[in-house]
Amino acid sequence: MPKLAEDKCRGCRGGDPPLSALEIAELHPQVPDWKVVKSDSLNTIERVFPFPNFAQALAFTNQVGVLAEEQGHHPVLKTEWGRVTVTWWTHKIKGLHRDDFIMAAKTDRLFETGE
Amino acid sequence: MPKLAEDKCRGCRGGDPPLSALEIAELHPQVPDWKVVKSDSLNTIERVFPFPNFAQALAFTNQVGVLAEEQGHHPVLKTEWGRVTVTWWTHKIKGLHRDDFIMAAKTDRLFETGE
Repeated sequence: MPKLAEDKCRGCRGGDPPLSALEIAELHPQVPDWKVVKSDSLNTIERVFPFPNFAQALAFTNQVGVLAEEQGHHPVLKTEWGRVTVTWWTHKIKGLHRDDFIMAAKTDRLFETGE
Repeated sequence: MPKLAEDKCRGCRGGDPPLSALEIAELHPQVPDWKVVKSDSLNTIERVFPFPNFAQALAFTNQVGVLAEEQGHHPVLKTEWGRVTVTWWTHKIKGLHRDDFIMAAKTDRLFETGE
């Protein structure tokens, strides 16, 4: 299987079904630091990234923002002193798409290597 | 009373008590678009700012970030496609300080005038 971080978002068509529990279980090991969060029947994936201050947290928010614009897929970015919480899901299908796991892997790579 | 937006954060000393319900009621009319949110006995003030896309939401997040660094007081900034939710409270006192209302007023001014 190609590495998720090197994959491109395909762009979710509204008709795509959300990933099944089995598909999520297959993809999750590639982004093990992310938590699958279920709320109001909406599945999302979320990770908290730690930083030593506010400025570096905000800088990471901007890096993820650039990635989001490049890929045409946008997360929720919660920026606060010392951390950024990134949440991915696919609005159109009110759930998780393979694109969300690709973006999670790309976000990890950004955190680890800055690229 | 001087306008809150022109006031400076005094820097909360740990010993300051959180604002009382009466003090909050006195300050709130100066930032009427903000909602006082009580959760787990923590009072915060929150406002959702709308934008036409992700890039402009992220640009506002950065503007508020600059303001936060200038004043030495930091919010939670939730950035997503089309909106930014700004939340102010004072960590040291686990509640609302006059500084939070000053920052809310400054955030409003930033949204309205860009300054």
